[in-house]
Amino acid sequence: AINSARLWQSLMDLAAIGATEKGGNCRLALTALDGQGRDLVVGWMKQAGLEVRVDQIGNVFGRRAGRDSALAPVMTGSHIDTQPTGGKFDGCYGVLAGLEVMRTLNEHGIATQAPLELAIWTNEEGSRFVPVMMGSGVYSGRFPLQQALDARDSDGKSVRDELAAIGYAGSAPADARPPAAYFEAHIEQGPVLEAKDKVIGVVTGSLGLRWYDVTVTGMEMHAGPTPMAVRKDALLASTYLVQEAIRIANAFQPHGRGTVGVLDVHPGSRNVIPGRVSFTVDLRHQDAAMLAKMDACLRRACTDIASEFGVDVKLDDVQYFAPTPFDPRLVQQVRAAAVLEGLSHMDIVTGAGHDAVYVAGVAPTAMIFVPCKDGVSHNEIEDAKPEHLAAGCQVLLSAMLASAGT
Amino acid sequence: AINSARLWQSLMDLAAIGATEKGGNCRLALTALDGQGRDLVVGWMKQAGLEVRVDQIGNVFGRRAGRDSALAPVMTGSHIDTQPTGGKFDGCYGVLAGLEVMRTLNEHGIATQAPLELAIWTNEEGSRFVPVMMGSGVYSGRFPLQQALDARDSDGKSVRDELAAIGYAGSAPADARPPAAYFEAHIEQGPVLEAKDKVIGVVTGSLGLRWYDVTVTGMEMHAGPTPMAVRKDALLASTYLVQEAIRIANAFQPHGRGTVGVLDVHPGSRNVIPGRVSFTVDLRHQDAAMLAKMDACLRRACTDIASEFGVDVKLDDVQYFAPTPFDPRLVQQVRAAAVLEGLSHMDIVTGAGHDAVYVAGVAPTAMIFVPCKDGVSHNEIEDAKPEHLAAGCQVLLSAMLASAGT
Ligand SMILES: NC(=O)NCCC(=O)O
Ligand SMILES: NC(=O)NCCC(=O)O
Repeated sequence: AINSARLWQSLMDLAAIGATEKGGNCRLALTALDGQGRDLVVGWMKQAGLEVRVDQIGNVFGRRAGRDSALAPVMTGSHIDTQPTGGKFDGCYGVLAGLEVMRTLNEHGIATQAPLELAIWTNEEGSRFVPVMMGSGVYSGRFPLQQALDARDSDGKSVRDELAAIGYAGSAPADARPPAAYFEAHIEQGPVLEAKDKVIGVVTGSLGLRWYDVTVTGMEMHAGPTPMAVRKDALLASTYLVQEAIRIANAFQPHGRGTVGVLDVHPGSRNVIPGRVSFTVDLRHQDAAMLAKMDACLRRACTDIASEFGVDVKLDDVQYFAPTPFDPRLVQQVRAAAVLEGLSHMDIVTGAGHDAVYVAGVAPTAMIFVPCKDGVSHNEIEDAKPEHLAAGCQVLLSAMLASAGT
Repeated sequence: AINSARLWQSLMDLAAIGATEKGGNCRLALTALDGQGRDLVVGWMKQAGLEVRVDQIGNVFGRRAGRDSALAPVMTGSHIDTQPTGGKFDGCYGVLAGLEVMRTLNEHGIATQAPLELAIWTNEEGSRFVPVMMGSGVYSGRFPLQQALDARDSDGKSVRDELAAIGYAGSAPADARPPAAYFEAHIEQGPVLEAKDKVIGVVTGSLGLRWYDVTVTGMEMHAGPTPMAVRKDALLASTYLVQEAIRIANAFQPHGRGTVGVLDVHPGSRNVIPGRVSFTVDLRHQDAAMLAKMDACLRRACTDIASEFGVDVKLDDVQYFAPTPFDPRLVQQVRAAAVLEGLSHMDIVTGAGHDAVYVAGVAPTAMIFVPCKDGVSHNEIEDAKPEHLAAGCQVLLSAMLASAGT
C-alpha cells in the first residue's frame, strides 16, 4: 500500500513554492518559481533512483528500469505549473502520486517487467503561454516544437528563453518513442464525484475544446459630448458576444461549456468610449459534431453583432482538440483496480483538458479522478482529502502494475 | 486681430511632446512628458511678460498686470494633460488661445483695466488620477487639497510625489481669491457645431456627471469541468450591468449619457471563470433630477443583477458634479463677441466636464466652443481647422477685453 502521509507531505512541500495568501499557488509555467518547483521534484525523483532526462520542450522524465529494458515504458505523470490563482492539487497530485508509486515499489523491492516512467509536462495550464498542454502536445506531435518554443507571454517573453532561464532547455528529443501505456491521476476539478459520493472517477474520455481570440474594434470618443446614437462602443458590442458565447454553451447541454476568461479594454479610461476590446472564448463539448455547431453559432454571432453595432469583429482560432475517448482496455484496468481496492467508483468524462488527452493520440491512455472540495479548481481555495488522494494513488499503482507486469 | 499662424504653431510645438504614432498625444497628468509640456508653455508665458506662480496643487497662473492692480483679474485657461490616446487640441487649445490673447495685446500695446491671468489647471482629464478636473476643483473648494494630493494612480504613485518629481509642487495657496470673470475656449468634442455648420458655440452650461467604481465578485472555477448551471461568473453578471448603464442613458434622451470606459477581469486566464470584475461607470445628464433618477436606476440594476446571478455587487461613488449653468452676463459677452466678429454661432451645452464647470462655482464663468472634425475627441485622430481655432481665439480676446475694460 502507498504511504498516504508521505504523498500528502510532498504535496505540501511543493505547495510552499509560490504559495499565495489565500492558501493557493501561483507558479506560472517557466517562471523562476516553476524552476524551483521542478528542482524540488527532480531532486525527489533522483532520490527515488529514477534516471532523469529533460527534452527540448522542457518535459522531465524519470525512468525506473524494468526487467526487460527493450519494452516501451508504462508512463504516468501530469504537470506542476499552476494558474495565476491556482490550487495545490491541480497537476501536482498526478506528478506526486506517480512519485509515490515509485517510492512504494522501491520500498517493497518490487520490480516490473516493463520500465516505468514519471513525466512532468511543460506548461499544461496555458495561462501564460498558448497552446495549452504544450509539453504533451509537442511530445505527441500535435504541433511543432518550434511553434511551441516561439510562443510568447503577454510581456513578449518566449518559451525558448524562459526554458533556458530556469535551466530546463533539455536536449532529449521532444518526440520520443511513445509509452506502452499512460495513466494520469488528477483531481476531478468539477462537482460530480462529490455529488454522487464516489471516491474514484474512471475517466472514459474528455470533452473537445475550441479556443479563440476575439478583437472588437469600434471608435474611441469622448464619454460626455458624444450622443448615444452615434457611438461605436467596442465594449458594449463585446458584452453581447460574451453573453452569446455563454448562451451557446447553455443551448448544448448537458455537455456544452462556454467561458470568457480574459477581456481587455482599450484605451481603458473612464471618460473614453472603448475603441477596442480583446477577449478570449473557450467552448467545449463531448461530441465533435455538437462542438462544430457551437463553433458555427459563435461565428454567426460575430457577424451579426458586427453589423448590428457597426463595429469590426475579428475571430482568431487559437487551439482545438477533438473530444478524446480513452483506451477501453486501460479504462477497464482502472475500473478493475478500483473494484480490487474496494473503492466506490463511477465512469466520468473530463471537462478539463489534460496532458493525457494529447498522449492518448500516440499511446493507450486512461485517467483516474478523485473528488475535490465543492468541485472547485482553478481557485486558491482548491482542496482535496488525504484519503481520497491516497485512494487514487493506490488505483494508479494497481493499474500501472497491471500494465507493466511484475 | 490675433495671429492664427502663431496660435497654430504653438499648438503643434506643444503636440510634439508626447506625440503618438497616429498623430495624437499621450501626455498623462504629472508624467515627465506633462512636465516637459508645462516647461514649454511656462517659457512662453515668461517671454510674453507674464508673472508666473504655481500653487500647491500644481496649477500654473501667468499674470499680466492691469492699470488697476487692486481689481480681481479676468482669467482664461484650460489644461495641457491628455488622455492616454488623446488629441492635440483638447485643453491645449484653451491654454494656447489664452496665450495668443496675451501675445496679441502685447503686440498692439493694449493695456487693460483689470489684470489678466492665464491658467494651466492640473489633471483635468482624470484618466490617471481621480478626481477629474482636479486642479480647478481644489482651487474652487470642491474637495480638499490633501485629498487631491493623496490621490494615487493605478501604480500607486501619489499626486503629491508626482508633482514634486516634475517640479510643479508650488507654494502659492491653492484657494486664491477668485477672478472677476473666467472664460475658457475649447473644442466642442462633439458633433453638434459641425452638423449645424456653426463656427462658435456659445456654451450656456454643462451636463452633470456621476462617476462610479463597480466591483462584481463571483467565484473562480475551472472553465472545463464546471457545469454551466453552478457557475458564479463575475464577467457574465458584469456584461448585464454594462448594458444596463447604457440602457439607462438611452432611456433619458436627448441629454443622457452612459459609458463604461474601464473594465478589468480577475484573474484573467482563458480557462478560469472570472471571479472578480471591476469597472467604471460614467453617467451624465443636463437635469439634476434626471441624473438622480439615472443614479437610482443604476443602483437598482446592481441589486437585481446581484441576486439574479448570485454574485456580490459593490457600487462606490467616485465623483459628482451637478449640471452647471454658466453666468448669463458672460455668456452674453461671448454671444456678442461672435456677432461683432461676424461669426456664425449657436447656444450649446457641454457634455464634457471642464475646469470652467468648477470655476463657475466661485466666479462668473463662460465658455467658447469651436468645431472639431467629425465631433471626435479623446482619440488620437482629433482634429480642428486653423480658421475655427482662430475664430474662437478672437472671440476670447473680445470677451476678455469686454470684461477687463480697456
Ligand atoms: N487540468 C487543467 O486544469 N487543464 C487546463 C486545461 C484546460 O483548460 O482544460
Ligand atoms: N474636456 C474633457 O475632456 N474633460 C474631461 C472630463 C470629462 O470626462 O468630461
